[in-house]
Amino acid sequence: MSLKKLVDVVEYDRGCSNVQRIAVLTSGGDSPGMNAAIRAVVRKAIFHGLEVIGIQRGYSGFIDADMGPMNLSSVADIIHRGGTILRTARSEEFKTPQGRAKAHENVLRFGIQGLVVIGGDGSFRGANVFHEEYGLPVAGVPGTIDNDIAGTDYSIGFDTAVNTVVEAINKIRDTATSHERTFILEVMGRESGHIALTAGLAGGAESILIPELDNNINEVCEKLYRGYKRGKLHSIIIVAEGAASGLEIGKKLHEMTGLETKVTILGHLQRGGTPTAFDRILASRMGATAVEMLMSGNAKHMVGIAGGKIVSESLADTFKCKNAIDLELYKLAGILSI
Amino acid sequence: MSLKKLVDVVEYDRGCSNVQRIAVLTSGGDSPGMNAAIRAVVRKAIFHGLEVIGIQRGYSGFIDADMGPMNLSSVADIIHRGGTILRTARSEEFKTPQGRAKAHENVLRFGIQGLVVIGGDGSFRGANVFHEEYGLPVAGVPGTIDNDIAGTDYSIGFDTAVNTVVEAINKIRDTATSHERTFILEVMGRESGHIALTAGLAGGAESILIPELDNNINEVCEKLYRGYKRGKLHSIIIVAEGAASGLEIGKKLHEMTGLETKVTILGHLQRGGTPTAFDRILASRMGATAVEMLMSGNAKHMVGIAGGKIVSESLADTFKCKNAIDLELYKLAGILSI
Amino acid sequence: MSLKKLVDVVEYDRGCSNVQRIAVLTSGGDSPGMNAAIRAVVRKAIFHGLEVIGIQRGYSGFIDADMGPMNLSSVADIIHRGGTILRTARSEEFKTPQGRAKAHENVLRFGIQGLVVIGGDGSFRGANVFHEEYGLPVAGVPGTIDNDIAGTDYSIGFDTAVNTVVEAINKIRDTATSHERTFILEVMGRESGHIALTAGLAGGAESILIPELDNNINEVCEKLYRGYKRGKLHSIIIVAEGAASGLEIGKKLHEMTGLETKVTILGHLQRGGTPTAFDRILASRMGATAVEMLMSGNAKHMVGIAGGKIVSESLADTFKCKNAIDLELYKLAGILSI
Amino acid sequence: MSLKKLVDVVEYDRGCSNVQRIAVLTSGGDSPGMNAAIRAVVRKAIFHGLEVIGIQRGYSGFIDADMGPMNLSSVADIIHRGGTILRTARSEEFKTPQGRAKAHENVLRFGIQGLVVIGGDGSFRGANVFHEEYGLPVAGVPGTIDNDIAGTDYSIGFDTAVNTVVEAINKIRDTATSHERTFILEVMGRESGHIALTAGLAGGAESILIPELDNNINEVCEKLYRGYKRGKLHSIIIVAEGAASGLEIGKKLHEMTGLETKVTILGHLQRGGTPTAFDRILASRMGATAVEMLMSGNAKHMVGIAGGKIVSESLADTFKCKNAIDLELYKLAGILSI
Repeated sequence: MSLKKLVDVVEYDRGCSNVQRIAVLTSGGDSPGMNAAIRAVVRKAIFHGLEVIGIQRGYSGFIDADMGPMNLSSVADIIHRGGTILRTARSEEFKTPQGRAKAHENVLRFGIQGLVVIGGDGSFRGANVFHEEYGLPVAGVPGTIDNDIAGTDYSIGFDTAVNTVVEAINKIRDTATSHERTFILEVMGRESGHIALTAGLAGGAESILIPELDNNINEVCEKLYRGYKRGKLHSIIIVAEGAASGLEIGKKLHEMTGLETKVTILGHLQRGGTPTAFDRILASRMGATAVEMLMSGNAKHMVGIAGGKIVSESLADTFKCKNAIDLELYKLAGILSI
Repeated sequence: MSLKKLVDVVEYDRGCSNVQRIAVLTSGGDSPGMNAAIRAVVRKAIFHGLEVIGIQRGYSGFIDADMGPMNLSSVADIIHRGGTILRTARSEEFKTPQGRAKAHENVLRFGIQGLVVIGGDGSFRGANVFHEEYGLPVAGVPGTIDNDIAGTDYSIGFDTAVNTVVEAINKIRDTATSHERTFILEVMGRESGHIALTAGLAGGAESILIPELDNNINEVCEKLYRGYKRGKLHSIIIVAEGAASGLEIGKKLHEMTGLETKVTILGHLQRGGTPTAFDRILASRMGATAVEMLMSGNAKHMVGIAGGKIVSESLADTFKCKNAIDLELYKLAGILSI
Repeated sequence: MSLKKLVDVVEYDRGCSNVQRIAVLTSGGDSPGMNAAIRAVVRKAIFHGLEVIGIQRGYSGFIDADMGPMNLSSVADIIHRGGTILRTARSEEFKTPQGRAKAHENVLRFGIQGLVVIGGDGSFRGANVFHEEYGLPVAGVPGTIDNDIAGTDYSIGFDTAVNTVVEAINKIRDTATSHERTFILEVMGRESGHIALTAGLAGGAESILIPELDNNINEVCEKLYRGYKRGKLHSIIIVAEGAASGLEIGKKLHEMTGLETKVTILGHLQRGGTPTAFDRILASRMGATAVEMLMSGNAKHMVGIAGGKIVSESLADTFKCKNAIDLELYKLAGILSI
Repeated sequence: MSLKKLVDVVEYDRGCSNVQRIAVLTSGGDSPGMNAAIRAVVRKAIFHGLEVIGIQRGYSGFIDADMGPMNLSSVADIIHRGGTILRTARSEEFKTPQGRAKAHENVLRFGIQGLVVIGGDGSFRGANVFHEEYGLPVAGVPGTIDNDIAGTDYSIGFDTAVNTVVEAINKIRDTATSHERTFILEVMGRESGHIALTAGLAGGAESILIPELDNNINEVCEKLYRGYKRGKLHSIIIVAEGAASGLEIGKKLHEMTGLETKVTILGHLQRGGTPTAFDRILASRMGATAVEMLMSGNAKHMVGIAGGKIVSESLADTFKCKNAIDLELYKLAGILSI
């Protein structure tokens, strides 16, 4: 059977839904795969006969009416691009009732009947308030490399960011092996150790410091020493920015052990890069589901993924707590880096 | 808390298990991440005080006694390497009772009390027969880029292979966009369309031909024409080798449409490359679990992953059928490539 | 000293040149780095106060008046993109006097006083004829992955294509090492072995077949056998498409040796990918020089690079012969793959 | 003609040279491509019937007799690996007459008649002193990512390091474009701006700060402001570590302009990664030439490359000054980033 035929079979009865025009924006920190999500929203909507408005620069564009219609071509050849073609921003104004009132004027002016918000928990908080005030149905799509949004196992961009860090570890490993030194890699994660833990385990790091656990420099040093005595001549330490400063750790380690230490701070390059297949599939599924949510009258939920299945989570529950790290992975990292 | 402390807490009581020495081999087609699995088996076993024998070249080395002890250093700096340091082979001899009898002599000679087999369904079939004949506890770890093993959502190497194909699509897209032509990419998958479907969806391919569905060239052409009239000047078609020959499809399309078509056959490079973070984590978790299985007396199971959780599947059930593709993804690919 | 100050020092006296408006097009097969060359042409021209017209789809757009003004923003964020934003095509019509007459009408209509042609020898042949017929100053910029244009050591895109092939060899090497098999990789090069030779040497291939030399399958087999006896269990053979068909070679080798052979045909993906630093620098230097040529009245030359220095070559000399391969590299490849 | 035949033709008369056994070491900071150079030294030497001793950990292993014979297999499958299989170190002891005397004992003990030193200017200084004291013929092969060695246009590893930085710029560009911010990337280069300049030009950076020029923060800010007013909403600044601290620059810029700035410090990952085709070819040619030098009695030279041709440079001239940057490239970067 061809794609077309299969697609015909599942085609929604377009008469079922009263929604005719939806809007989409990206908000907060950008993450790789956001473009794939935008593409899925636009194409899925057009497939069902809807019109789509693209809003530029997140809530800022929502307030300033920086928006316009999108068609099939608007999202051609973007699935592989990092960043977001709709750009993003953090809007202080949208946190004020006045800001949101301006945005609501644009909802009326442009005839928007539903809004897809691709972003993090801060963005969902704003979407939720806006829904409560003005009743506009909103659908959240989790996009952040930090992977800290509650209600979904994975957020769009996390897999790409982890692979970016792992590639960095690969490169550092080359020189570490040749040079018999200790290397420290500071990665993103102010409140969450997802990137550090996953990349550290995948990269075979000797130590991983994350904000969720009490990090003890003495123990890190002790472990380094044990390895050193066993003949392990080099060591790679991954530090989440929320756990400690890479430069500070490097300095302390040097003072305590006399070992030469070298520090890399990856910074925002972790937000870029062409998205991995995983992130593109995730973004495609989530973007398409967000449109289905709006069509079916589901008014204030986030699309999530749990156990490999797409799920729906109350928007209000997504910013009350953080997606917890898996301590089993942390233990496993400890066992495998002996 | 430091890695060490956490690890102490979960440390198995080594006295619980009578297993003192296990062996590990890789078999069948190699896949990226097999080295990460070997590393996990060796380090997890050593962590629990076991000895590990590494068997070279799959069942061939098992028969020929091509094996030796592994230690922590044997698996240092291999987590990021494609291929398998234990090498692999397909052994016709192990399919015979005589071959297996020789292997059993080596089991006795080397004092092997359990065997971890990293490979595909053919390898598990052999492991199962061997267990039934000689009672050696065996633990399977699914490693194949085809992702067609029943009992696990993902096999080690699949994610890497998909990303390799997606990178190829990215490159083809550059020239396709510049040149307004039709490109055909033949990927691996004799009986299974997992790679073609996942990479095709992630790469934004216009058509995906997989062995599981009746592929109709007329419909592929029709779709190409529709896009062409709409101004879509280039097109990328992904063909699983089991669905059709890329070269043949290219020839037919040219005859039918007059459009110039270009063909790429990726071949075995899909088996190589440094494993993705996903495959390394999967391999680390699965390798460690295989050791736990052997320690706990679980004698003939494969480690699988289902809904993100590690599961145990009867070895005999892994080669009776194939891991089915997700038709929802196929439909989604159709909708998003309109 | 800052960039600005240094730049001020070298700023051309814009009054020196009568040229006010130039055009740029990409033609023939696309190659990675063409966008970097377009960017350099546009920005260098604007820096000197010129106007730039971008012509779409090579000589086709030149004939069809598919062109428009370009500014600084037209070329923002394209330096890293494969392909060409101006798209490319092969125009049969431009080979006719009628086609060129139409193009000349557009020269007059748009007030074009000079033309930068980024492409291969076929494109330069067309540019040369056009110059001879209508006197329009033309500047050629060599862009082709084949690296076969006479008058320049390197063409834009060659370095990227070679790295793409080398990455493919890396991946094949993983599975070759694990599996002890013979692998054949067919690469681009109908009349020229530049890609095959350079990538083969860089990738450590055991044999390299190029169109420039009499390729003897018997000798390739003999070498394979010698290696095999010495314990070299795997082998990688690079074949330029102009030397032989990869599939055919694979078949013959299997018949002669009984060894299992696997074939990869890279095809057009060699034309894509984000350009390497080398290609971007080359494209930037060449694009800028092409503008200087047109400003200084140099009317029918190609920018080349020889011994690391930018040179100027008569356009007519670029398509009379091919850039020869370096036999020393071929010998070196033979010595290093023993 | 086959590789073998061509090679036969050029085969050196092995009787010409009295050299029977040479040694090879890597010293100083490691760089990608060193393994390709080691491979070339070993295979070229064996091709000519010489024996090769591999010395571990640079001059440290030379002093400590940490060395052993290498054969064809010692260098199999290493051409694509970053780092150096011989490892490297900085030896304070070799700077003393006592240290060198110990090394000389090993020269006698192991029958070493010539030494290939792969490293930077510091390593060549040591080699030169050793040659002057003990007469051992030495051949230098320039390996450093900094590209600051006089007497060669390119050192092994520079091209790879530049591409690593350019990939980082690509990723930062994604988020910069989406987010409209200023990004600072600190790269290696304590005394030399080669990496910063080449990568900055190739990456399209808005400003490049290098140690060779007086860097004026006020002017950098001024340029940022001009672009900002023109609508250029994001900016990427490359800083060589020898020119300024990335973190400091970020802080100052923020104070002066109020613009949010983000800093990445790449650190030692610039030393790793699989070498580019360019670096592998360079390393292969240089390594092979170093062996020829020792065979022909050339006793104290470095292999260099100038204008694409392999040249020979007096070792003593390689550490008297630095390889200067090309100011033309700096000017071009200024023009193209307007």
